[in-house]
Amino acid sequence: MRLSLAAFALASMAVPVEAQERQRPPRVAPPLVHDTAPALGAYTDGVLFADVWKRPQLAPRDRSLITIAALIAGGHSAQMTGHFNRGLDNGVTREEIIAIITHLAFYSGWPNSMSAVAVANEVFAKRKLPPMKADAEDALMAFDAEADAPRAAAVNAAVAPIAPALARYTNEVLFRDLWLRKDLEPRDRSLVTVVALMVSGQVEQMPFHINRAMDNGLTQEQLTEAVTHLAFYAGWPRAMSAVPVLKSVFESRAA
Amino acid sequence: MRLSLAAFALASMAVPVEAQERQRPPRVAPPLVHDTAPALGAYTDGVLFADVWKRPQLAPRDRSLITIAALIAGGHSAQMTGHFNRGLDNGVTREEIIAIITHLAFYSGWPNSMSAVAVANEVFAKRKLPPMKADAEDALMAFDAEADAPRAAAVNAAVAPIAPALARYTNEVLFRDLWLRKDLEPRDRSLVTVVALMVSGQVEQMPFHINRAMDNGLTQEQLTEAVTHLAFYAGWPRAMSAVPVLKSVFESRAA
Amino acid sequence: MRLSLAAFALASMAVPVEAQERQRPPRVAPPLVHDTAPALGAYTDGVLFADVWKRPQLAPRDRSLITIAALIAGGHSAQMTGHFNRGLDNGVTREEIIAIITHLAFYSGWPNSMSAVAVANEVFAKRKLPPMKADAEDALMAFDAEADAPRAAAVNAAVAPIAPALARYTNEVLFRDLWLRKDLEPRDRSLVTVVALMVSGQVEQMPFHINRAMDNGLTQEQLTEAVTHLAFYAGWPRAMSAVPVLKSVFESRAA
Repeated sequence: MRLSLAAFALASMAVPVEAQERQRPPRVAPPLVHDTAPALGAYTDGVLFADVWKRPQLAPRDRSLITIAALIAGGHSAQMTGHFNRGLDNGVTREEIIAIITHLAFYSGWPNSMSAVAVANEVFAKRKLPPMKADAEDALMAFDAEADAPRAAAVNAAVAPIAPALARYTNEVLFRDLWLRKDLEPRDRSLVTVVALMVSGQVEQMPFHINRAMDNGLTQEQLTEAVTHLAFYAGWPRAMSAVPVLKSVFESRAA
Repeated sequence: MRLSLAAFALASMAVPVEAQERQRPPRVAPPLVHDTAPALGAYTDGVLFADVWKRPQLAPRDRSLITIAALIAGGHSAQMTGHFNRGLDNGVTREEIIAIITHLAFYSGWPNSMSAVAVANEVFAKRKLPPMKADAEDALMAFDAEADAPRAAAVNAAVAPIAPALARYTNEVLFRDLWLRKDLEPRDRSLVTVVALMVSGQVEQMPFHINRAMDNGLTQEQLTEAVTHLAFYAGWPRAMSAVPVLKSVFESRAA
Repeated sequence: MRLSLAAFALASMAVPVEAQERQRPPRVAPPLVHDTAPALGAYTDGVLFADVWKRPQLAPRDRSLITIAALIAGGHSAQMTGHFNRGLDNGVTREEIIAIITHLAFYSGWPNSMSAVAVANEVFAKRKLPPMKADAEDALMAFDAEADAPRAAAVNAAVAPIAPALARYTNEVLFRDLWLRKDLEPRDRSLVTVVALMVSGQVEQMPFHINRAMDNGLTQEQLTEAVTHLAFYAGWPRAMSAVPVLKSVFESRAA
C-alpha cells in the first residue's frame, strides 16, 4: 500500500505521525483481493475498515444493519455470508437479521429476500443456532391509529383512487402488521427502509421515510453518516443524490 | 402464523370466519423459508400466494408473465427456475418464455437475458421439451407504417439529432423487427415492457409504454393490478413511484 | 435466422446484396443460446456483434471498457468471464481491468467490485498471468489543485454543510487519490464512470461527468456511441434517458 493511503487511515486512528510509516491498518480484505487487486485491498483496509467503520457517528451494530440492508436490497448474495457473520459479531441478533430480510421483502421485493434467506440459513447452521420460533400471539406492538392517521390519509388520497388494492396492502399489511412487529425496533426498521430506498434510487420516496426515521429516534448526524457509509456500499452516485434530500428534510423540520 | 395474517388471507378466500381459526393457507414458500424466516413464510403463503395471486383482476398467466419479466429485468436468476415452471403450469408457453427473454434483452440489457436463457434451458431440459425451432420466414407481423408514424417521428425528433445510430436501431430493430415478432402477442409484449421499465426505475419512459399497452388491449384495471403485483416482486418504492404515472396517463386518455 | 436480420447485419458489413442470402454473420453467441433462444442468438450475432461492435465510432478496446464497466456496475458476474477475456484480446490490459474494478468500487459500490475481483482472479489464473504488483511510490499523477478547484468548491458548497465526512472522502480519497492513479488513463476513467452512472440510472449526476469526460479527451461522437452501445448492455430505457442529458451538455459546451 502506498504510504499516502496508510497515512490517511492511521491519521484517523490517531497513530502518531512518526509511527505511521512502520504501521499498516489491520488486514480485512481477503488475500485474493490483496493479490489480484492490491489497490482495492488497500482502500478496503485503509479507508473502508480502518476509517469509515471506525467513525463514532454510528455504532458498529448500526453499520452492520446498514450494510446488511444494502446487500439485500442490492441483491449481493456473494457478500452476505461475511456481513451476516460480522453483524452477529457486532450485536445484531439472528432474529433481527431475519426481521430485516422480512421487512425488505416489501421494500426491495420478494426475490432479494428469498435469496437472502438461503444465505442466512447457511450462516446460522454453521453457527449451530437453534431453529427460529414462529411468531407468538403478541408479536405485534399495539396499533396507534391516531399517529398513523396522516400517513393513511396520504395513501388514501394519492394511491387508493388509482390502485385501491395497493393502498389496502399498504395500510393493512405494511403499517398495521409489518411495521408493528416486535422483532426489529422501529428505529432500526426505519434505518433499513431508508437504505432500501437509497439503494433502489427511489429518491422521491425518501422524504417521508427520513422524517419517519427521525420520529423513530434517528438523529440528523446518524442519517447523514448512514448516507456516507452507503457511498461505499451502494456507490458514490446514490449517496450524492441523497444529500439534497437529507438537506431539504432537515431544513423543513428546523423551520 | 399469527391468526391476524391467516385471517387476512382466508378472508379474501371467502372462508367463513368460524372456519378460519382451523385453517391455514396452502404452503407455497419452501420449508427452508418457513424454518429460517417464519414470518416471511407466513407473508408468502398468506398474503402473496393466498391473496395477491388469487385476485381476479389479472389471470394467473398474466401474473406469471409479470413475475417472469420482473425476475429477468431484476437479474434474479435464483428465483427463475420456480417461476418459469409456475409460468408453464399457468399457460405461458415455452416459446413465450423465450420471447420474453429475447424482448427484454433490449429493454433490460443483454446480460440479464443471457443469464435467463441458461436457466430456461435447464427448466426445459428437465421437462424434456424438444429443441426450439428457428424463425420461419413469416415470423413477423406486417409492419403498419401509418400506426408507427407518430412514434418514429418522436424518436427522429428527440433522439436522431444526437444519437442517430441509436435512433436507427430503435426504428429498425425494435419497432420493425422485435415488436413485430409473432412469438408474443403485442399485448403481452407491452405488459413485460412496462414491467421492465418499472423494475429499472425508469419512470420517465413509462407514459409512452403505458399508452401503447392500452392501445394493445390492456385495461386500466389490469395495468393497475400489474403495479400492485409488482409491489411484491420489485418492492413497494417502485410501485409507489409508478402510481402517479398511471394516474396521469389514465387522465390524459380520459380527457 | 430470418433473412431480414441477416441482411441488416451484412448490409453494415458492406457485403454485396446478392451475396447476403448465402452468408450469415459469424457465430458469437454460445450454442446454448442458439438452441434455446434462436432469435436472441440471431440478434446477438447479427445485430450486436456483426453490427454494433463493428461500428468505427468506438474502437473495440473502448467497447470492451464500456461493456466491462456495465457488467461490474450491473452486478452481472455470469457474463464477466467472457468479457474480461474479450477485453484482454481487444487490448485492455490486466492492470486496466483491475483499475476499472477498483475505480467502480467507489462509483457502483464495494459489493459489485468484490464480486468482480473473484472472476478476474480466475480469468487471470487461467491465462497464467503473474501476480499483480503493489503500487509503486509514484503510482499517482501530480495533483493539479487549480484545475480541481471548481469541483472542490461545488462539493464544499453542496455536500460539506450537510455531510462533511462524505465531502472529505470525495475530495481526499476520490479526487486526490483514486482519480490520480496512473493505472487507468483519465479518459478511460471518465468513460467507465459515465457508464456506471448510466447503469445505476443516476441521470442527475451525469452532466458533471460528461463534461469531465470531454475535458479528458472523449469526443461528442464517442460519448454518444457509448450510450448507443450501452442500450444493448444496460437496456434501451437507460440509454433513452441518457440522450437528453448528452444533448444538454453538448449544447452548453457549444454555447
